Amino acid sequence: MLLHVDRDSAIPLHLQVRRSIRDLILRGELNPGQSLPSLRELAAAAGVNKLTMLKAVDGLKRAGWLDTVRGKGIFVSEHLPPDDARFDLDPAGDNHFFEGAPIGPAPEELADGIQETVDSARSPDVVSFGAIFPPSDIVPAGWVRMRQTAILKEMGPAALGYASTTGVERFTAAVRDWLAARGLTLAPDDEILVTGGAQQAIMLALQVLLRPGEQILIESPGYLGVISACRLLGIGMEPVSVDKSGLDADQLETRLKRGEFRLLFCVPDFQNPTGVTMTETRRRRVHELCRRYGVYILEDDPSGDLRFTGKAIPPIKALPDSGHVLYAGSFSKTVAPGLRVGYLVAQREVMVRLRRMKEASDICSPALSQLLLAEMLASGAYARHLRRARREYRRRKAAMLAALARYLPEGSRVTDPKGGMHLWAVLPERIDTMALLKRAREAQILFTPGALFFADRRGNNCLRLNFAANPPDRIEDGIARLGALIRQAERRH
Amino acid sequence: MLLHVDRDSAIPLHLQVRRSIRDLILRGELNPGQSLPSLRELAAAAGVNKLTMLKAVDGLKRAGWLDTVRGKGIFVSEHLPPDDARFDLDPAGDNHFFEGAPIGPAPEELADGIQETVDSARSPDVVSFGAIFPPSDIVPAGWVRMRQTAILKEMGPAALGYASTTGVERFTAAVRDWLAARGLTLAPDDEILVTGGAQQAIMLALQVLLRPGEQILIESPGYLGVISACRLLGIGMEPVSVDKSGLDADQLETRLKRGEFRLLFCVPDFQNPTGVTMTETRRRRVHELCRRYGVYILEDDPSGDLRFTGKAIPPIKALPDSGHVLYAGSFSKTVAPGLRVGYLVAQREVMVRLRRMKEASDICSPALSQLLLAEMLASGAYARHLRRARREYRRRKAAMLAALARYLPEGSRVTDPKGGMHLWAVLPERIDTMALLKRAREAQILFTPGALFFADRRGNNCLRLNFAANPPDRIEDGIARLGALIRQAERRH
Repeated sequence: MLLHVDRDSAIPLHLQVRRSIRDLILRGELNPGQSLPSLRELAAAAGVNKLTMLKAVDGLKRAGWLDTVRGKGIFVSEHLPPDDARFDLDPAGDNHFFEGAPIGPAPEELADGIQETVDSARSPDVVSFGAIFPPSDIVPAGWVRMRQTAILKEMGPAALGYASTTGVERFTAAVRDWLAARGLTLAPDDEILVTGGAQQAIMLALQVLLRPGEQILIESPGYLGVISACRLLGIGMEPVSVDKSGLDADQLETRLKRGEFRLLFCVPDFQNPTGVTMTETRRRRVHELCRRYGVYILEDDPSGDLRFTGKAIPPIKALPDSGHVLYAGSFSKTVAPGLRVGYLVAQREVMVRLRRMKEASDICSPALSQLLLAEMLASGAYARHLRRARREYRRRKAAMLAALARYLPEGSRVTDPKGGMHLWAVLPERIDTMALLKRAREAQILFTPGALFFADRRGNNCLRLNFAANPPDRIEDGIARLGALIRQAERRH
Repeated sequence: MLLHVDRDSAIPLHLQVRRSIRDLILRGELNPGQSLPSLRELAAAAGVNKLTMLKAVDGLKRAGWLDTVRGKGIFVSEHLPPDDARFDLDPAGDNHFFEGAPIGPAPEELADGIQETVDSARSPDVVSFGAIFPPSDIVPAGWVRMRQTAILKEMGPAALGYASTTGVERFTAAVRDWLAARGLTLAPDDEILVTGGAQQAIMLALQVLLRPGEQILIESPGYLGVISACRLLGIGMEPVSVDKSGLDADQLETRLKRGEFRLLFCVPDFQNPTGVTMTETRRRRVHELCRRYGVYILEDDPSGDLRFTGKAIPPIKALPDSGHVLYAGSFSKTVAPGLRVGYLVAQREVMVRLRRMKEASDICSPALSQLLLAEMLASGAYARHLRRARREYRRRKAAMLAALARYLPEGSRVTDPKGGMHLWAVLPERIDTMALLKRAREAQILFTPGALFFADRRGNNCLRLNFAANPPDRIEDGIARLGALIRQAERRH
């Protein structure tokens, strides 16, 4: 029996061993009821000491993978943890548990994936449904230019100095007011930290709340930025499925009972990548479960302001007793990513540590961007801008749904988001979207392959499509060409 | 014998135990030649297993703190590591070694210290010699406004989108050219990563090259931003003294022989906080030593462009065979911190990991700032701006040196930097500058207390003074008032 451990890894040995044994069970190399070697022999096989092996075996027993029978030894459990296969956005319909170490796309795949979708989207010849940012006809570049010039004229060098690490007060006050108007009144001891987009908010929260080898719960499929950050920080991820109503709360409860988690990362509004909105019932239950199990929630809400259909549901952070909820917002998706401004809301107690980490990370975020957004929020220009963006995005989504209905192969499923800029498509299982992307790239079409959004190497037949980046006719044309490529791939198959 | 370990700490147990035993020796609770309990008893005292204790004892033996005599046991070494007390910028003249865990100012002291100097410097009533950034009469705010407006007009939304994670190519190319003109021609496989100021360059390098519990070498006194980052990342720091010619290379060699280090952090030009320039001889020796011992150098050069006296010495990175040198630059000290743009130069091999970490940290740095600086560099506006800044800073330094000569108490020493914006003062030992700062703050004068620049709680009688922030008459007035406060403190003493 080969138990691989990596002594150079930041992940504690017992977690590595634990995962290694669980993988053998998942791969069917160890079967229910099968007897394992003694603790001492297992330790020798893995090259770890007995105490480490004992810890690993104990963890596996608690999680339901192993049993020990006094005087008889260690056995693979007769009743392995259940297969939670019933979530329609999850392409394979099964969940391979993993903990301690992430086993998703390699960092270079993720990085290259992100980089590529961002880079190529700039070429005018490319029809990009890939990266998600406001299209050039929506970014209020004229407004930004005029107001930025005015602020620089009025304030001079002061607008170009270091901002306070926490942020420019005028801006954080405007954010507070804006959130209140959206139904999220912050508690008296909730503070706001200005960050370099929501991505930095996520990174800082992970750095401050977790250590290498600890674990978080993430949505599956889930935001690739959090998967990438966890991989780099040596933080383990356990997936919780997403269905049409958002994060599956029953599955969350199962996970919470079985393992030790520090944090749940979720995107309740227009989830990334599915575009699904978490229902109010789910939000309440997720909030309550995490509170009961002592787990932080990192609620990422980069595009909640972009709802174009139906009634808004307040963020989880707006529920009573939300001290365990950290809330991340951004202006990258709503105004322009180049401002590099987002924010993180957290209780004072956690904020002390977040502020220190921010300071050591890059001292502060640009003051000028904050002054500009403060004015945009307070003057009503932001609200006006949003109305225009929402109207346009709704129109583009409709165009994309119509095109997808025409050009995707039978058996495909797509989501119908109530806001944001992207939707999720599940193609027939035989289609490999990573391979499809190569051909699409040659044909000057881009999308983001589904596999990037799973920490456990699934989602090969899925893709995320940005419906907001192009006007309707270009959407129709691009999807038609993409549909043709898919049909070609099917024939080749 | 009490050996304290913290099982929740990110620092490996054996390093915690090692530090704990060394601290007992340093505090005189264990004396040279004294016999220690057995390995098993030591392990029990610390609550760790024997293997961990063996690792700790081995480390202490290698470093010269303990001896073991076969059949007799473990003894405190008769010849403890030497006291390297001979460096005139080091206020106490001794070096307490520490490793595994930093024991400098607590993170909150550091954070509050940095924050306070930045915040208060904005009040017009305060004479600030504290934080270091270009003064408002030097920041080219008019130029920035005009050119920023022009770029936004010309490029529109494209200037407000995501930049490539590596940076805007036009900008990194301009940096490459500028560095070449300064005598630093990058190697073919050296790449440039744009960062949120030099601070982010430092943070990324530490995250990518080190794990919690590993150690770096830092200058003593040294840059508080690196001390703060190391504390937060659980990285140990070992100080190497700075004298009038820069980092002490003999001491560096002693350290390199004794311990295992991954990286040396240093600021060869206008060192922070002393303002000292490392001589060419020292640079060569530091480069050579680190190469021989397989240690990376992180060369931080935020203000090398601000030399106003004497001939420039090329960066360490400019020496042949500098693959082990990472070079960090910034435009925060030279143009304006609000641009939030610095950069990191590293070999391609390391850059792959740096780029991923940057992407997970905050995706990219602002494109508009990069476009602006690209133009400033290429058009000659940057060179013109520097000429003006240098002329002014030289004048202000002269004013401050004159004022310090008049108003500091006998026995004080100050450095005479050849560039940059700050100098270092060592006051008579009885003066506690942390206490002095409280009274100075009431009197509306700010400086940065020396203790913030030592990882090992020394430097109480030192302070860093920014000489560039104020015109000469205001400098004279501020230093006169500071001098009066020091005399008061001395009388009280």
